[in-house]
Amino acid sequence: VTALAAALPGIDVRAWPDTGEPAAVEYASLWGDAAGDMRRFANLKVLFSLGAGVEHILGNPLRPPDVPVVRLIDPAHRTGMIEYVLMRVLHYHRRMPEYAAQQAQGIWRERSQCAPGDRRVGIMGMGELGTGCAEILVRLGFDVAGWSRSPPTIVGVTGFAGRDALAAFLARTEILVNLLPLTPETVGILDAGTLAMLQKNACLINVGRGRHLVEGDLLAALDSGHLAGATLDVFCTEPLQKDHPFWTHPKVTVTPHIAAMTLLQSAVPAIAENVRRHRAGEPMVGVVDPARGY
Amino acid sequence: VTALAAALPGIDVRAWPDTGEPAAVEYASLWGDAAGDMRRFANLKVLFSLGAGVEHILGNPLRPPDVPVVRLIDPAHRTGMIEYVLMRVLHYHRRMPEYAAQQAQGIWRERSQCAPGDRRVGIMGMGELGTGCAEILVRLGFDVAGWSRSPPTIVGVTGFAGRDALAAFLARTEILVNLLPLTPETVGILDAGTLAMLQKNACLINVGRGRHLVEGDLLAALDSGHLAGATLDVFCTEPLQKDHPFWTHPKVTVTPHIAAMTLLQSAVPAIAENVRRHRAGEPMVGVVDPARGY
Repeated sequence: VTALAAALPGIDVRAWPDTGEPAAVEYASLWGDAAGDMRRFANLKVLFSLGAGVEHILGNPLRPPDVPVVRLIDPAHRTGMIEYVLMRVLHYHRRMPEYAAQQAQGIWRERSQCAPGDRRVGIMGMGELGTGCAEILVRLGFDVAGWSRSPPTIVGVTGFAGRDALAAFLARTEILVNLLPLTPETVGILDAGTLAMLQKNACLINVGRGRHLVEGDLLAALDSGHLAGATLDVFCTEPLQKDHPFWTHPKVTVTPHIAAMTLLQSAVPAIAENVRRHRAGEPMVGVVDPARGY
Repeated sequence: VTALAAALPGIDVRAWPDTGEPAAVEYASLWGDAAGDMRRFANLKVLFSLGAGVEHILGNPLRPPDVPVVRLIDPAHRTGMIEYVLMRVLHYHRRMPEYAAQQAQGIWRERSQCAPGDRRVGIMGMGELGTGCAEILVRLGFDVAGWSRSPPTIVGVTGFAGRDALAAFLARTEILVNLLPLTPETVGILDAGTLAMLQKNACLINVGRGRHLVEGDLLAALDSGHLAGATLDVFCTEPLQKDHPFWTHPKVTVTPHIAAMTLLQSAVPAIAENVRRHRAGEPMVGVVDPARGY
């Protein structure tokens, strides 16, 4: 609140629930459903998400339907996501889980290693974040494919578009990165059927949303030996429940939703700039199409 | 041998010890001291190393002193090294050892995370490989410094040159990458004294040579809590002895000298091209200065 107030001189910035007169609230920045029934803010002009995802706003039945929803496009968030995805793609590409198992047994054995050009990485979701990850992976020489609703057109990335192309996309993928937005079409998209389409010994990096993944189906695919590993940063329930099998599964790496961090010093200017644009009648950055969901 | 023979039509390529008449041998490609006394090859024109390092040739007292020594500059080798270094820098930057410890205890807790621009990576050795690593780290936004004999001049990299600058270089370093050549000046350079100059909680990535590091001094620095972690791909004795404390140390990651792999499809053309150049009287690529040691 302090940082936003400093970035928006002349504007009264308050933290919920201390919002004062509801009719005086013009802009809301929110995460989760903390604010409950948003319709009581009768003069709300914009709903800003405090994250890259907006499903928490669009999925709220008490949302005023005609108020524009804007997602956060934060350079630090993008940087963090690229770091995390790159780190884990390299971890699987360079067979680090196998070397860790060897170390635990005191085994010195070189494993065969393919060049990056022979390693097929598949990225689901080619928006701001997926494109950023694809670009750096291409630069490092990986064989990268992207799957999205409309055909991705990034130099060096093999594009797959729409449900009809999903099977072909998965069939070529050894390391799968999920960066889809969560929409009614993508909930549960990573289930037994789609995971079975991946290459044998494929690995999954889920940095989208927990609800993209049917968690029990992933456990079954890991236990059957079809998938070799999974790095999960997002979960159906967060924090991940104390007794969830992911915590102790030898093929699963759990991180507590930290892949991309929202930093005050980059998120606040992004929101402040959109407030300025809105008040000046200029187009805002990151306006969401509610029908599409992202 | 088969691949090299195919790349060098008209040249008789043989595997040691089946070298035939010693006086007929003009070129030798070698690793380690397998060939023993090289002086019996009276007409030897070039000694090619099968790796990026040449200390195994220069350190052989039975080497014919006037025969040029050429190191291997293999694009696949460079790619592999960049992948490995980037992977481990990101691993420490993103606090993965701490998240792994949390996972083992079932703890969901976000840790503070700095932006790459606030993460100081130091690279010792700014040759072919060090420069390649520095470039990609700079591109990802890290605060990179390089230490070498002559001042490194890579855009975006803070250069430190010579012994006098070593303390200042180490004092700013949170993640140290060793890519020095092994020479009489660099043997044992990573000892109690230099490790103590690193930032508290610094991490070491040793991908140079095992003998750059005084292994007992590293263990002491890890156990005292001064250093937070080490990734070691090279060791004083390889394979690493069965009972070496590195295998089981909780802060040490061991890999079996696999950071940069020499691939047949890229190493053979590099050697064949140098043979062609030598026969055509053109300068070879990677000729070593024996006095300098690299």
